Amino acid sequence: MNNIFFTVGPTELFPEVKHLFLEAIKEKLFSISHRSKEFENINSYTNTELRKLLCIPEEFHIFYLSSATECMERIIQNLVEKRSFHFINGYFAGRFYSIAKQLKKKPYQKKANLKDGFKFDKIKIPENTELICFTQNETSTGMVVEMENIYKVKNNYPDKLITVDVVTSVPYINIDFNKIDCAFFSVQKGFGMPPGLGVMIIKKDCIEKTRLLKEKKYNIGSFNNFITLAENADKFQTAVTPNIPGIYLLGKVCKLLNDKGIDRIREETDEKANMIYEYFSKHKYIRPFISSIQNRSNTTLVFDVAFNSNIIVDKMKRKGFVISRGYRDFKESQIRIANFPMHKITDVKKLLGAFNNL
Amino acid sequence: MNNIFFTVGPTELFPEVKHLFLEAIKEKLFSISHRSKEFENINSYTNTELRKLLCIPEEFHIFYLSSATECMERIIQNLVEKRSFHFINGYFAGRFYSIAKQLKKKPYQKKANLKDGFKFDKIKIPENTELICFTQNETSTGMVVEMENIYKVKNNYPDKLITVDVVTSVPYINIDFNKIDCAFFSVQKGFGMPPGLGVMIIKKDCIEKTRLLKEKKYNIGSFNNFITLAENADKFQTAVTPNIPGIYLLGKVCKLLNDKGIDRIREETDEKANMIYEYFSKHKYIRPFISSIQNRSNTTLVFDVAFNSNIIVDKMKRKGFVISRGYRDFKESQIRIANFPMHKITDVKKLLGAFNNL
Repeated sequence: MNNIFFTVGPTELFPEVKHLFLEAIKEKLFSISHRSKEFENINSYTNTELRKLLCIPEEFHIFYLSSATECMERIIQNLVEKRSFHFINGYFAGRFYSIAKQLKKKPYQKKANLKDGFKFDKIKIPENTELICFTQNETSTGMVVEMENIYKVKNNYPDKLITVDVVTSVPYINIDFNKIDCAFFSVQKGFGMPPGLGVMIIKKDCIEKTRLLKEKKYNIGSFNNFITLAENADKFQTAVTPNIPGIYLLGKVCKLLNDKGIDRIREETDEKANMIYEYFSKHKYIRPFISSIQNRSNTTLVFDVAFNSNIIVDKMKRKGFVISRGYRDFKESQIRIANFPMHKITDVKKLLGAFNNL
Repeated sequence: MNNIFFTVGPTELFPEVKHLFLEAIKEKLFSISHRSKEFENINSYTNTELRKLLCIPEEFHIFYLSSATECMERIIQNLVEKRSFHFINGYFAGRFYSIAKQLKKKPYQKKANLKDGFKFDKIKIPENTELICFTQNETSTGMVVEMENIYKVKNNYPDKLITVDVVTSVPYINIDFNKIDCAFFSVQKGFGMPPGLGVMIIKKDCIEKTRLLKEKKYNIGSFNNFITLAENADKFQTAVTPNIPGIYLLGKVCKLLNDKGIDRIREETDEKANMIYEYFSKHKYIRPFISSIQNRSNTTLVFDVAFNSNIIVDKMKRKGFVISRGYRDFKESQIRIANFPMHKITDVKKLLGAFNNL
């Protein structure tokens, strides 16, 4: 029996990935130079399909990096002189904050009450903050920050840059790029691909800040500094040999999603999420972790378990369903279930059926 | 007609890559968590096969990064307080030097006379140098530095760390790891794989230098600093979600090469290189670029062309053979031909046959 992965990433691949990869090997696309016209065509194709899928305006660059964590590092290096501000709703938001400290910046942080979310009315962001960092969908806790609240913060602090980690919410989350400055993700989550590629979508204006930091002799990194990345992105090139299979597959997966229609994907995601939350709202010993419904993730759903949650994870695996354990401190008290576009409604029903007979 | 890639990388894939990738997708290896036991098993397998192939002692860590260029950046960040020394025999050696400058260090450099190599007897390395950087096989110029000369430098300067870029010479080059401190490469060259993975082999002792830099409050980077990388490598884990397909395929390709036998691979590489050099030594208008035979690469062979070399590259492509143009300044005056383990002797003969009838 082949397991179905409902893990929060790496996760189930789109079934088409196998065929697409074979086709690319046959066409020898992974042997071409990253300085060739053929690579520029692949990059341009991916660019077009991704822009269409996520409604990315022309005023934004698309950069390819190796992981979402590298995106965090490069953002701090290239957009912050001294002060970033981090909304902490879980482990990965905390990682972003730690990276700022490791890179010798002086970041601020505001921790959420995980059950209820942030009290935005009461949070004051210090005047000298340069960059505000959100983790829109926290993979570790399943707590989301609503995009409307992020837009409000931008509206209240228009002189500050806003970056949004959407690692486990794209392509489901609808982002109005006119109201933020930067977003980033990796492909082994909602895009159903093998891991090894990070993607950053960044307003072209932001590079002015990088130029300023460079003039002031700050260390903005080497090959993946934003000035070099922008120069290359403009020509559909990359600074160094990138993960060409990743860039190629991302374009093809975006095409699949565009053909299906992003609205339908979002509706189906809502439908599946409702089904799962509805099921566990009546469960005897498995209950949603986040109390406030508007802060609950529809893509990475986190549940408290009344006893050691490893028992659930192991039993489900024996039934052919791989789900994630809780993260770090919650390892033995929670389970996490992913709900991404490649997860079929019929498989979600089977998953819940398996929970019936534990 | 399917082209054969004799480019210096990305290049021809091992034909087995297609089947290996399919097999892995079938087994859902690209859906597993990088924190799982299954990933540790993949990592451990690759580790074992790579150590066997390149005779890597236990005293060395194996780190997975995203590219050879990232290896350069992390080496400078983690092993240099102020002074690195760079032997410059081409563009990529120059990139290593530039990265040191971009990261606010004060590197020294010594440029080679490309025709004849370095005059090691006459080169004095300043006392305050911490790290000496070699590009053993320069992909841009086809100039090699003999390992014996690198060992002599280590012998003369035992207190300084030695790092060796072997991007386009592994697995052909025989490295005595007891006489160096660090080596690195990427997989889209001699390992015949798709691009997107950098590999660093580093003496465990080196991490003491990183600890010292950290104590002195230097910026050693964030998620890919050597302390974090070492802690994870010890457990066959990685700091962030890595290119799992890359790590998986590397192990399987090393197994293929181990089964064939590294000695035989090296002999065949010599045989094919001799065949190519022999052929062009008598050519009317294509001649080896590097005059001194001991400095000529057997894996990335570079030739001067008496007229615009694009004509040769284009004509060869029409005959089904993709070769590399010259690099940067040499773009229109040179050609570069790769000779890696996946290049068959019969195909090299066909390649040279095609040069006969240009």
